[in-house]
Order: sequence, then C-alpha cells, then structure tokens
Amino acid sequence: MRGVVMHAPGDVEVVDRPDPEILAPTDAVVRLSASCICGSDLWPWRGTDEVADPCPMGHEYVGIVERIGDDVATIKVGDFVVGSFFASDNTCEICRAGYQSRCVHAYLMGAEGTQAELARVPMADGTLVATPGLPDADLVPSLLAASDVLGTGWFAAVAAQAGPGKTVVVVGDGAVGLLGVLAARQLGAERIIAMSRHEDRQRLAVDFGATDVVEERGDVGVEQIKELTGGLGAHSTIEAVGTQESMMQAIRSTRPGGHVGYVGVSHGVELPGRELFFSSLHLHGGPAPVRRFLPQLVDLIWNRTIDPGRVFDLELPLGQAAEGYAAMDDRLAIKVLLRP
Amino acid sequence: MRGVVMHAPGDVEVVDRPDPEILAPTDAVVRLSASCICGSDLWPWRGTDEVADPCPMGHEYVGIVERIGDDVATIKVGDFVVGSFFASDNTCEICRAGYQSRCVHAYLMGAEGTQAELARVPMADGTLVATPGLPDADLVPSLLAASDVLGTGWFAAVAAQAGPGKTVVVVGDGAVGLLGVLAARQLGAERIIAMSRHEDRQRLAVDFGATDVVEERGDVGVEQIKELTGGLGAHSTIEAVGTQESMMQAIRSTRPGGHVGYVGVSHGVELPGRELFFSSLHLHGGPAPVRRFLPQLVDLIWNRTIDPGRVFDLELPLGQAAEGYAAMDDRLAIKVLLRP
Repeated sequence: MRGVVMHAPGDVEVVDRPDPEILAPTDAVVRLSASCICGSDLWPWRGTDEVADPCPMGHEYVGIVERIGDDVATIKVGDFVVGSFFASDNTCEICRAGYQSRCVHAYLMGAEGTQAELARVPMADGTLVATPGLPDADLVPSLLAASDVLGTGWFAAVAAQAGPGKTVVVVGDGAVGLLGVLAARQLGAERIIAMSRHEDRQRLAVDFGATDVVEERGDVGVEQIKELTGGLGAHSTIEAVGTQESMMQAIRSTRPGGHVGYVGVSHGVELPGRELFFSSLHLHGGPAPVRRFLPQLVDLIWNRTIDPGRVFDLELPLGQAAEGYAAMDDRLAIKVLLRP
Repeated sequence: MRGVVMHAPGDVEVVDRPDPEILAPTDAVVRLSASCICGSDLWPWRGTDEVADPCPMGHEYVGIVERIGDDVATIKVGDFVVGSFFASDNTCEICRAGYQSRCVHAYLMGAEGTQAELARVPMADGTLVATPGLPDADLVPSLLAASDVLGTGWFAAVAAQAGPGKTVVVVGDGAVGLLGVLAARQLGAERIIAMSRHEDRQRLAVDFGATDVVEERGDVGVEQIKELTGGLGAHSTIEAVGTQESMMQAIRSTRPGGHVGYVGVSHGVELPGRELFFSSLHLHGGPAPVRRFLPQLVDLIWNRTIDPGRVFDLELPLGQAAEGYAAMDDRLAIKVLLRP
C-alpha cells in the first residue's frame, strides 16, 4: 500500500509500505476513506521532536473494515468506523473510568501510520465505533475530525467544566482550539472567548460559537480576559497549544476555583508550583480519551447537529502529503485532509 | 497584650504588643481561648521563608468575641467563634463559588498574629462561625484544629475526591496529612494509605481511619502504592508537604484519571509539564477555603463525631511558645497548642 513516512524534519514522502496484517485475533484492518495531518505531526516536522527514519505518519482515521481477527465480536467487515488515536481495550478499570487513552493496553495509532491506504487497528471492539450506515460523503470530514481534534477539543471543554453560566477562554486557534469552542457551545457555555490573531480562524471560531475574540497573547491577553470578566478571570479555560507561554496564559486567565483543561502536548513546560498553588484552580488534561466521547460525537455528526469537518480547509490526495505539511506549517491551512 | 513575634529564623519571643482595635465597622476583636503553631510557621523558623523583624506570628484561633464594629450583624459579643486563617467577606463571587481563601477581599490572619491574647478579625460576619454555645473545655482543641489544619486536610480530601469506593493515599504525616486521613474516612473512602515513617504518627493515622501504612518515600514508596493498587495507583491522593519530592510522590502515586489534592504550601516546586500531561490526572489545591467547610466541621466536632484535636500532642502556655516551635521543628510534637 501507499503511505506517508517522515525521513527527517521537513522531509515527508509517500512510499510503498507493506499491507497491514491481522497480527492478533482482536485486530481489524480498515481501508481508510480519509486521513489527515495533525498539529502534533508538526512537532517532528519542525525538528522539535526527534524522528526515526523512516517514520510512518498519521494517527487519525475513518474507513471501512476490510478484515477482522477471529475474536472481534462487535465490529463487522463492511462497517464504516471511526477510532481514537489511542487504541484501547475499553474494558480495563482505567477505560471504565473514562480514560481510554491511558488504557492498561493503550496503543498509539501513530505507530501504525494512518496517513495511508490501510491501517491495522488493535483491540477493534474496544477502539472502533461504527456509524449507523455508510455516511454521505459530506459527513466524512466531520467523522474524521472526531478521531482526534474534535474528541480532543471536546475533552478539553469537559476537563475545563465548560457549561451553562460559564465564561470559557480558549487558548490556541488550531483545529483543537476551534473545536474546543464548538464543544463549549454544545456544552452550553454562556460566553466563549477565543484567543486568536488570525482573521480566518477568528471567523470560524465565531461560527462555532465564540462570543468574543481577544487578539493579544501573554500577559497583555490575560489583562484583556480580566477586563472582560469583572477582574476575576474565566471560569473555564481550554489550553490547546502546549508551550510554556500558552500554559501560563491559560492559568492566569482563569479565576480562583476555576478549571483549566489542557490538551496541547507539553513541550518544555515547567509549571511554577507556588503560582499554581496560589491560583487555586483545577488543572486537568493530557492525551484525550477520545473513545469516551466517540459514540456521542458520531451521533451529533450523523444528526448534523455539529459540523466539525469545517476545520479541514485544504484537501489533497495522499500523494501530495508533503504539500499539506508545508501548508499547515506556514499556517496557510488550519488542517489538511488526505484522500488515499 | 502579650503576643509571639519572630525576630529571625529560630528566634521567637513573647512580647507586649498593642491591643487590637476595631479599625473597620465590619471588624471584631476576639479574646483567644487557644492558639497554636502551624507547620507553615516552621518555614520562616527554618529560614526557608524570609522574616521581617519583628514579625507577629500565628493565624489559627478560637475564642470569645469581645468587641464588634457597628456593621457586624450576625456575630455577637460573647459568641464563641472559629475562623479561617483567611478572613473573607463570604459574599463575593469567588466566595460564593466556595473559594473564600481567594475572596476578592481575602486577608491573611497571619498579619494579625493570633499567637496572642487578642486578635482583630476583619469581615467578622463573613469570616467567623459561632458555636451553638460555650464549648466544653475538651472541645476547644478540636475547634481550634478546624481553623486551619482540619479545614485544610478536609479540603485536600475533597479536592482529591476521596469518597466511597476510593483508595486514598496521603503524602505527609503532619497535622494536615493526619487530618486528611480523618477527612477521607468521614467522606467514606474505602481504603486509606498513610505514608509515614514515624510510629506515633502512624498510630494516630490508623486511629483516624488509615487502613494501610507505607513507610518508604519517593519512587520506592510509589512502587509500594502501585503494588497495593493492582499496579494502577490510587484514585485520590492528598499532598500535605509542599516540596518537589512530595508533589512528585503524590502525582506518581495516582492512577490516570485520578485526583491529587495538594495543600502543602509550595516551596521550590517546578512541575514537569510533560510528565503531568501524560499522567492524565486532576490537580487541585492551594490555600484551603476553610470557611466553606467550617459550619459542617463545627457541627461534627460539636456532636463529637470527630476528634481532630488529637493532633495537639503538646500544650504550652503562650509564654513558652519558643519551646513549642523547637518541639515541632525537632518532630517531638505533631502540633503545639498555646494557651494565652
């Protein structure tokens, strides 16, 4: 099959890779209808994370089940499925508590590389959610978004306890931040302040439910949040970047007793204990347990209540993946969908 | 009046200080029945925190209201009262959300210095809780404990979401940690693992409800917690020390999706963002909003359901405060009660 590999920072290529096989009786092999490039794929692209050459890329996926192992019970050949970027058994104590991304058997789908024509999905029964039928073509991008960016933004909003009566700040205007706005709106937040300095992303944030936009960052941005919240700060803050600056911006934008939901993969972050202590806030986050939310998210997409696929503003054939990486790196695209 | 001041690390003295006055119409002046030395008083005593000379000491207090300002409406002269170490208006938005220690008018009672005969309490209506009558003498230590160490341990247990079915780890065997054990028991925790290497404190922990004791610290202690919890870690962890080692011990003892309630005042703590991210846990803490819990705690003490005053294992007249500091510093006493 054809699949994307990264050789080194800035160097991705579509190559022939071996077709995935059923390795365990709980595996499924899925023919991918669509895949995409993640903001987190830019960390190695930019050289921030190390790359083993060749490194298969991609961890988001939707498609049609082509083969299943003997022990797969609930997923059938021919099902259209969505799965999280972490495969999980969905039966262990951690999964049952809703933390499937930390399943005792958690398996990062990046190791399979889903920017490809096919993907092996371990623990298919625990990982995959089948849609009620084959989706209309226009639903595919939204279902793909559920695989990571929507699920991650949704988890951030839940972790930040976005809800009725709450003022929610969103730090980060990538796909996850924008879908954090959408999630906060769906969860009933009263006011949603998107922190963004890019006009196209501001527009999408407003379409997704943002009531206010703050363009400034850092302490100046925090001051503006304070002005908008009676000097107190937000009840709930979504952090969707993962840098020291974005974490401190999130923490300082939040009132005492408030909640920060952080989902940007931490890069070089050191949290000052004393400031955190006296902030009196709740901090929760990490790799999103997308599987917890998938049934609900698939339902909202299937019923056309939400349209998270709008974050894909560039669609390319798989063979042009390198262009997609460059476009996201240059912020010419929010998120790139790849068609195998 | 007589009151304790610190001149320099290791140097406290009982001196004549001016009697407190009603400075604002919302003030009360309380004649203290008992005061005490806090673990946090040992930070300046040991030279970790700086000291202004002379620095009035003490922030825990119970006593009888002697005078009130013209605007005090609910607290009366003659009431026996308990207050938090943070005075608060109890009416602002932050207080109403339950974070009175971060009240927009929060005032640290340490500035008054309650290791003394009298204390001014600002915002008396918002700060003080009157008992149903004059307490029996044996209840006074427990009511005094409610002022800080019980309220702080209780907040930590609530922040850690201790409750039915939960395994709770307690890091720190000072008065706050021990009362965190008591709180977890009252909140219905199934299993409570006290981390302590001091036999007398282990005994009190067991009396307060600990089901297990782990003597090791650091990563060895964490391994023992993992062994006791099926390899997963605790659901809930109370951190009651405030050092880098104790925070990491608490974080690493907790399972993914679990809750850490941290109340040890942070000293030199830097939390590694990436480890915290992949821990997937909830972190909440800070200066305890004791006022939130005071009515309930006074009730539990008044009904003799709990006996938190047992953490006071040394009682001295105010004039011997210096001996009390030394005894706590040398771990000869868990907590010292001072009689003015």
